Amino acid sequence: MKIPPVKGTRDFYPPDMARRNWIIDGWKRVSLRNGFEEYDGPIFEYLKMFQIKSGDEIVEQLFSLQDRGGRELALRPEITPTLARMVNQQINSLPKPIKWFSVPRLFRAERPQRGRLREFFQWNIDIIGVDESTADAEVIFCALDYLREIGLTPDDIVVKISSREMLAALLQSIGIGESELEGLYLVLDKRNRLPADAFEEMLAERVADEDKRKKILELMSVESIGQIGDCLELTDAAKESVDELGRLFELLGVMGVADFCRFDIGIVRGLAYYTGIVYEIYDKASELRAIGGGGRYDDLLKQFGGPAIPATGFGIGDCVLAILLEEKGLLQKQLPVRKLDYFVACVDKVHREGAIKLTMKLRSAGWTAGFSYKAAKLGKQLKKADNQSAKKCIIIGRELVEKNELVIKDMATGEQELVDYDKFLTKCTESK
Amino acid sequence: MKIPPVKGTRDFYPPDMARRNWIIDGWKRVSLRNGFEEYDGPIFEYLKMFQIKSGDEIVEQLFSLQDRGGRELALRPEITPTLARMVNQQINSLPKPIKWFSVPRLFRAERPQRGRLREFFQWNIDIIGVDESTADAEVIFCALDYLREIGLTPDDIVVKISSREMLAALLQSIGIGESELEGLYLVLDKRNRLPADAFEEMLAERVADEDKRKKILELMSVESIGQIGDCLELTDAAKESVDELGRLFELLGVMGVADFCRFDIGIVRGLAYYTGIVYEIYDKASELRAIGGGGRYDDLLKQFGGPAIPATGFGIGDCVLAILLEEKGLLQKQLPVRKLDYFVACVDKVHREGAIKLTMKLRSAGWTAGFSYKAAKLGKQLKKADNQSAKKCIIIGRELVEKNELVIKDMATGEQELVDYDKFLTKCTESK
Repeated sequence: MKIPPVKGTRDFYPPDMARRNWIIDGWKRVSLRNGFEEYDGPIFEYLKMFQIKSGDEIVEQLFSLQDRGGRELALRPEITPTLARMVNQQINSLPKPIKWFSVPRLFRAERPQRGRLREFFQWNIDIIGVDESTADAEVIFCALDYLREIGLTPDDIVVKISSREMLAALLQSIGIGESELEGLYLVLDKRNRLPADAFEEMLAERVADEDKRKKILELMSVESIGQIGDCLELTDAAKESVDELGRLFELLGVMGVADFCRFDIGIVRGLAYYTGIVYEIYDKASELRAIGGGGRYDDLLKQFGGPAIPATGFGIGDCVLAILLEEKGLLQKQLPVRKLDYFVACVDKVHREGAIKLTMKLRSAGWTAGFSYKAAKLGKQLKKADNQSAKKCIIIGRELVEKNELVIKDMATGEQELVDYDKFLTKCTESK
Repeated sequence: MKIPPVKGTRDFYPPDMARRNWIIDGWKRVSLRNGFEEYDGPIFEYLKMFQIKSGDEIVEQLFSLQDRGGRELALRPEITPTLARMVNQQINSLPKPIKWFSVPRLFRAERPQRGRLREFFQWNIDIIGVDESTADAEVIFCALDYLREIGLTPDDIVVKISSREMLAALLQSIGIGESELEGLYLVLDKRNRLPADAFEEMLAERVADEDKRKKILELMSVESIGQIGDCLELTDAAKESVDELGRLFELLGVMGVADFCRFDIGIVRGLAYYTGIVYEIYDKASELRAIGGGGRYDDLLKQFGGPAIPATGFGIGDCVLAILLEEKGLLQKQLPVRKLDYFVACVDKVHREGAIKLTMKLRSAGWTAGFSYKAAKLGKQLKKADNQSAKKCIIIGRELVEKNELVIKDMATGEQELVDYDKFLTKCTESK
């Protein structure tokens, strides 16, 4: 009976797993050196948890299931609700600020597309308890610290940054009511992905007044923070959030990543919970979906039954990132090469147990070691050692019986030397 | 709105995550040095995949869900069916033998108990394409290589080993028909966990003939391989599998792990797919559930639509293992200690940007570095550095402006030195 895998999921054969591990190990390494600690939650939570402030799009795409008592559960489509739940549970004992990262496996029950699968990994980093834009800048720096380390330059990627708080203030000064904002964000979020006339049509459905629409279109076409003041008279609230965005760009300069960053008023983000600075990372040619994105979500913990506490964070998925890295030729060449430290061969069947014994001793001392399952001829064993990229081949023969010695062959140079068995083992154990 | 986590799942706060990572990193490290390559499959598969040869117990405990087309899916309760599917898919191109490992997250919809949760991790290693007992011995060695490395001794744990092939031959020589074997295994598998009279009652339901029952009970009480011949006349098939089991113990001796291993005819394993050598690992005091187990499953790939190819492997879960390690005091003390390489402090607000700039430069050079979000007094910053276990604290003050120099304080000795900014940075970048 032959059964296929489920569409939109991936089988990770060893070469695929090596790529996945290389990406995820990089995320972890960079998170740690940026001072973040790792956490994780369960793969499933109560369904209703994802219905709080996650945005309609995500809720529609949930994989739902039931526990034995018939309670509705869902596979997590994102980890931020879990983060909010976990932080709230221990809010009094956790030292602040909280700097946490996670690499959750996430699930979306949507039609699989290029760069968008039903099952994927996402790097999340969050800072909870800091309301200054230093925290937003640090989170953006951390993402870029990783992307720069793996070889991406400002010619390859761009972080497009804006502020929802600022956008809210600007839209309100145009005359949009506060209750209309959330619906309007969903439309504005689509602007960069739609043809101009389709976007204007969608906008007209939300905003009836033509004058207001014109002003919104004018606002959405500004290309620098400075231009905002040219197209609108700024209220005090708007001025303050414009200044905050300016400070963020200054800090990104101090941090040495300004080259990667650009103001883009069209960045709004789909998720309902963002409250301030928002950003998305794209390939420079804009041929792929967003590599990642994030922003400030100062109200979320409160909405999950906790205290009002400021928070900011981002997520980067593995699918679009891997496509970009493949395209730039940055993936395959950076993968670690699998090598065997020692292959233990024997010249004759009678030495086979000796070969197995030594192999296991080397492994327990921390070395990667192999042997041949079949009592093959020495030449065949040496070929096997070569196939497995062994650095050294140990040959067990009559020297072991007669003088307690091993032949060690350097597979790169072909040189052979005779060494005392016990001395060799002692050296191997001590040097690992 | 406060929502709890689902019962039987775990929240991994940073200290819990550190424990989980330490266990899983050990599994990976030991697998690699034993010559295994990592793979993984999707979290869910088509439901029917787990209904092939997995045993009734597992199928009852599935978390099932549907995709958008209404097809029945299930969260994986084990990874062996996925392994069989993946190997069959690429059977012609994969070099043999296949030595693979995985650390899947698995799910069972059962009532949570101590050491048995609804969501857990399991270390799996498998060798496919080797029919000799060398492969079984190597798999057992690999499990013990890990368990020994983390500090467990033959006083703490025991691998109980038997052979289903041998048991089949012995039961058949008693007069049990081949079709009755599978049902009888399920009863015999429970012997070590049931009181004698309850076991005998269950046995009587399966085997009506009293003479046969008596012989089975006698057989199940043998304590060494040698005793088997005393209680039964061995058929040729039985003799062959008794000899094979003997060879396995010999090999485990050669590999240096005989102290951990013991013959136990009561080991049968619940899963339906085992065909030869079977084993389970227990704490010596037998107070906990099995730490892990495995065996030979030579027919499984064929049942999944592939060729007849021999295979052997084991799984070790993280829950019982963690309980045992906690009890033995082996967990907490082996966890890596979180340390900051550098904390960058500044004597005055005017140097704050300089501190942020240097922190980011250090991080990009590969060092773990921190700074203070608040422009606090130097004493407070030094205290923060201490709280975060910083090895060194860099103090930025007028020396930087006047002479381009930094003060570096060794947090262990308290010693301070003045170093040139550029030379320090060059050294930091080169030495990482």
